[in-house]
Amino acid sequence: MKLNILYSFLNTDLQIIEKELEATIHAESPVLRQASLHLLQSGGKRIRPVFVLLAAKFGQYDIHVVKNAAIALELIHMASLVHDDVIDDSDLRRGAPTIKSKWDNRVAMYTGDYIFARSLEVMSEIKNPLAHQLLAHAIIEVCKGEIEQIKDKYDFGQNLRTYLKRIRRKTALLIASSCQLGAIAAGVEEHVHKQLFRFGYYVGMTYQITDDILDFTGTEKELGKPAGGDLRQGNITLPVLIAMEDPRIMALVGSVHENISKDELTDIIDTINASGAIEKASEMGDAYLKKAFAILETLPPNRAKNTFSEIAKFIGKRKF
Amino acid sequence: MKLNILYSFLNTDLQIIEKELEATIHAESPVLRQASLHLLQSGGKRIRPVFVLLAAKFGQYDIHVVKNAAIALELIHMASLVHDDVIDDSDLRRGAPTIKSKWDNRVAMYTGDYIFARSLEVMSEIKNPLAHQLLAHAIIEVCKGEIEQIKDKYDFGQNLRTYLKRIRRKTALLIASSCQLGAIAAGVEEHVHKQLFRFGYYVGMTYQITDDILDFTGTEKELGKPAGGDLRQGNITLPVLIAMEDPRIMALVGSVHENISKDELTDIIDTINASGAIEKASEMGDAYLKKAFAILETLPPNRAKNTFSEIAKFIGKRKF
Repeated sequence: MKLNILYSFLNTDLQIIEKELEATIHAESPVLRQASLHLLQSGGKRIRPVFVLLAAKFGQYDIHVVKNAAIALELIHMASLVHDDVIDDSDLRRGAPTIKSKWDNRVAMYTGDYIFARSLEVMSEIKNPLAHQLLAHAIIEVCKGEIEQIKDKYDFGQNLRTYLKRIRRKTALLIASSCQLGAIAAGVEEHVHKQLFRFGYYVGMTYQITDDILDFTGTEKELGKPAGGDLRQGNITLPVLIAMEDPRIMALVGSVHENISKDELTDIIDTINASGAIEKASEMGDAYLKKAFAILETLPPNRAKNTFSEIAKFIGKRKF
Repeated sequence: MKLNILYSFLNTDLQIIEKELEATIHAESPVLRQASLHLLQSGGKRIRPVFVLLAAKFGQYDIHVVKNAAIALELIHMASLVHDDVIDDSDLRRGAPTIKSKWDNRVAMYTGDYIFARSLEVMSEIKNPLAHQLLAHAIIEVCKGEIEQIKDKYDFGQNLRTYLKRIRRKTALLIASSCQLGAIAAGVEEHVHKQLFRFGYYVGMTYQITDDILDFTGTEKELGKPAGGDLRQGNITLPVLIAMEDPRIMALVGSVHENISKDELTDIIDTINASGAIEKASEMGDAYLKKAFAILETLPPNRAKNTFSEIAKFIGKRKF
């Protein structure tokens, strides 16, 4: 089953968003236009727009208002991906060459800036000051997370708390903000949009933990990039942290460096996969999902609530 | 005479802005805090905050409201400097090492992002949607300008129009927006804030042309970095464009590359300085200034108008 079957009733509105995303990043500059379109067309799940729309269904849903929050959040996400690829020195994303590999780091930096600026233009259509404050706060946290991520690279002494704080800033906050901003754009009352934020937050944590697990268990075809890429780049994720509780694995993992051979990396991945760390990491992902479901229970019943529930279940089980 | 004597009556308010600038970029992350503070403390003329405050004097001036526009615009300017230094591969700015040279390009990229995000947080205090739209538009243009700048580097066939478009986006638009946003934050009526935008735009054009001239005529001590840096980095500015009208100088300049020796560069700078191009460039700067004064004539009389006039005169004559 594919994720998008769960929200096919949003298809008309998602197509509006897709068209406007493309129109928004259209630039006279050929490099900028090609680089931005390249990223947009390489796909992505559009999880943030979907969450914006679903959360807006808890209020006065008007696609011509809420679309702005959806487009802005997807653009911010895209901008952060472009800058992330510079930091991670990644050549592939979603199976396609990254902007920094197809052009260079300088083009990637300014393409990210440009897409980010475009998101502000779209956001300026939303008149609610609270929406702007919340979004600015989320973006600040994303930036802090990205700086921390540089610092934490190849730091094999980091603990679980560092990891959780990092994925909170890297992923969970923007998904949480997608829910909250969609709700605010639809005039949802405060206690409900705050609950939607929490729901998005917990789902986002599970989403990233699953992503980090898949980097070990997925195939190159499923991932659109070689497995074990996180570890090679020095990103210490949950499966590694758990596996390193065993001092022998700790010693093995501690030897990882940027230019490790494919065979050596495969050996380490196999060791981590065989250590039971994947199962424990998965349990932690499930624990966050359980919290998400508990929040969902408190929300008024409607179709979007059911869809949120289905999506959360899917994310808990997703294999790619 | 120093520029800041002209607006000493703003000193109390400028001190508030300086303190809040420092408080705003304060981050828990040591790298981020040090990198941002490093930039803030290396000085700068704070032209944008001064223009915001002066323009606000045409309306209901309340420092606690207009300060947000002043801080946001200075932060956006700072963020763009940090990213510019990555592109230009600059090791010195304002006589101090740049973030990218003291840390690295990745830290510079995210420090820029972080400062930019902070500016959004500050801007979210301003409730006027028009202010947000105008600012978003200005930032998009700045980003486009930066991408164009990469493309135009070492392109010795570019024309005057390319140059003017570039400095419009690089400098004039943010100074123009400073005037307009200060005015809007103080409730100034439309035809006045639009005139203030135009005034800032023309002053900004002169400001950048003068900057580009000083890169040829200034000493290393005055500039805080070696002279001729623009040309070495492949930034073709007005004096070069004018000098290249002489085919012999065109041939000479066309040989410039990143690793040109200091002596060779000095020879080229001397040739350009002796060609009469500096004087012609200066005349063009004066022409923009004349337009700025014409706009100023149409504005209602007050102290800020006098100060704008004094600053514009100063900028026309500035030597550093």
